[in-house]
Amino acid sequence: MQRTVLGFALTVALTGAAARADDLRDAAMFLFAPLPSTTPAVADNPITRAKIDLGKALFFDPRLSASGVFSCSSCHNLATGGDDNIETSIGHGWQKGPRNTPTVLNSVLNEAQFWDGRAEDLKAQAKTPVQAGGQMANTPENVVTTLRSMPAYVEWFRGAFPDDADPVSFDNMARALEAFEATLITPAPFDAWLNGDEGALSADARAGLTLFIEKGCASCHKGVNVGGHGYYPFGLVENPGADLLPAGDKGRFAVTSTAIDEYFFRAAPLRNIAVTAPYFHSGKVWDLKVAVEIMAESQLGEELKGREAQQIVAFLESLTGTLPPVAVPVLPAETSATPRPTAEVMGK
Amino acid sequence: MQRTVLGFALTVALTGAAARADDLRDAAMFLFAPLPSTTPAVADNPITRAKIDLGKALFFDPRLSASGVFSCSSCHNLATGGDDNIETSIGHGWQKGPRNTPTVLNSVLNEAQFWDGRAEDLKAQAKTPVQAGGQMANTPENVVTTLRSMPAYVEWFRGAFPDDADPVSFDNMARALEAFEATLITPAPFDAWLNGDEGALSADARAGLTLFIEKGCASCHKGVNVGGHGYYPFGLVENPGADLLPAGDKGRFAVTSTAIDEYFFRAAPLRNIAVTAPYFHSGKVWDLKVAVEIMAESQLGEELKGREAQQIVAFLESLTGTLPPVAVPVLPAETSATPRPTAEVMGK
Repeated sequence: MQRTVLGFALTVALTGAAARADDLRDAAMFLFAPLPSTTPAVADNPITRAKIDLGKALFFDPRLSASGVFSCSSCHNLATGGDDNIETSIGHGWQKGPRNTPTVLNSVLNEAQFWDGRAEDLKAQAKTPVQAGGQMANTPENVVTTLRSMPAYVEWFRGAFPDDADPVSFDNMARALEAFEATLITPAPFDAWLNGDEGALSADARAGLTLFIEKGCASCHKGVNVGGHGYYPFGLVENPGADLLPAGDKGRFAVTSTAIDEYFFRAAPLRNIAVTAPYFHSGKVWDLKVAVEIMAESQLGEELKGREAQQIVAFLESLTGTLPPVAVPVLPAETSATPRPTAEVMGK
Repeated sequence: MQRTVLGFALTVALTGAAARADDLRDAAMFLFAPLPSTTPAVADNPITRAKIDLGKALFFDPRLSASGVFSCSSCHNLATGGDDNIETSIGHGWQKGPRNTPTVLNSVLNEAQFWDGRAEDLKAQAKTPVQAGGQMANTPENVVTTLRSMPAYVEWFRGAFPDDADPVSFDNMARALEAFEATLITPAPFDAWLNGDEGALSADARAGLTLFIEKGCASCHKGVNVGGHGYYPFGLVENPGADLLPAGDKGRFAVTSTAIDEYFFRAAPLRNIAVTAPYFHSGKVWDLKVAVEIMAESQLGEELKGREAQQIVAFLESLTGTLPPVAVPVLPAETSATPRPTAEVMGK
């Protein structure tokens, strides 16, 4: 995990390097990386076609929620950039979530999941919304009973986990979801440019990339996902205000209980950022240019001038990628053994 | 519109015909019809590829709802038989709808839309959930403002309605949705059998089909959608009880205000019925065999014996069809002119 001081040191060194070499691509290749052309491997979960197919079915299945209303794809909508494009998610009982939904696209390449990194990988992440009372409001037991009630699911789990004596489990549900989500990689014009296609970035986007490196944005937003690694305080230089940074959400502090982590958040991964408004963990800003200006001021103490913010936006737009085609799966029908959905809100 | 007495006369005649000819397929071809192999034409709305593609984008776009949470596909989920598989739909503000969601699959071939037939076609139907306070809770004005705010949508509407001076309209939204929905045709084993493939139906399914005709089910559930045409009283012979037929919902009476239409409903189209539980307009019955037994008793005064209900279920299962592959569309991103979603419930 990169800390602030290290981050700044790195920026200075790289800014120097970029200037000396006069080679924007060399600097960019040092800071970032093009997306891989194959599905990334994940820890303790060999990815197979059978697992991907099962994970896709599960991703689209609203019966993972107690109400039968929400699937993973409800909030991580592949049609709208892999997120839900609302301030914070709305779930079971019309409850409003505490933070803006991160995109599932390329999320396998993040260091950890959630705004505070509290899930070490997508396996761990996948189990959380399913059980959150304000999201899918289900229990592992009910999910497993649901899946076991449909013979097609039992067969698919067997195919995906052929060595398991008891393949239909909550853990294996999470593994299959991780396998499907690992396929959601979206190569973008920026990748084409990193790979040597000079025409893939406009002059504005290249100018924006230069600013992105020189101003210091890339100290935190770096790596293959242009972010998604390291934890940093929101309001490093100037407090962005209580609207954007509500006092009640102390970010990574909730994970580490360490005072220094108060209001620290994972650097947001910026791939597909132009199609995943609104911005920040609070979801309070809809305009990407405004978000860039706020970040420059709060994190770097920089007031962007003239066309600078616009050029950085042009660079960020070059991170909008292409999703591999995903056909809506055909899910098995319920049986008499399938638990029935309930819209009831516990404690109400 | 077929009325009860006519319906019965027809059954008697056809039962006779089936017995005389000893040819189940002839009788079935007289009562039903195989699905067409091409997209059905609709009134006043020539179907083009551009219109289908636009309609598909709209069908998956949650920004047609005020909250940004619900798209057409939320309740008419193509992954689960074109409906939502819950008792009655859940919409804006976690409000529960009054009736079970009908499937969108093959719905273009119904005589009219909704359980009470109050929309004459899918164009008219499409405008209703978008505006219903307990469903998508939007207004035509806000929908048009939303669509006009995204340049890609403006271009797609222009392509789909090239002769319109003002192509982005609520009416054209509905026309495009109708065009996409008209493509959702699901040929099933029953169609293969009607088309001459003897092996496509099991002996049980053929026995069930015979019972379906001879007992009189096909008096109402007939035509290409095995229903979807004509209005009939639920509880023709015996009242199915207040749980299944709540007194507050008088069915087609709400449309015609004619006393004779009290508790009349459109004969449910039975294609894909095995994957679209729960059943009846009240959505109170999950088991297809139980639903068949209830219908036999309440509509025909018949108590099914031995394996009869099971055989009818085998026939109904042969109506589960195959949807053409539908890839999740990539929707345009919001702009600064896009109205922001609101989860607020009016009047609360």
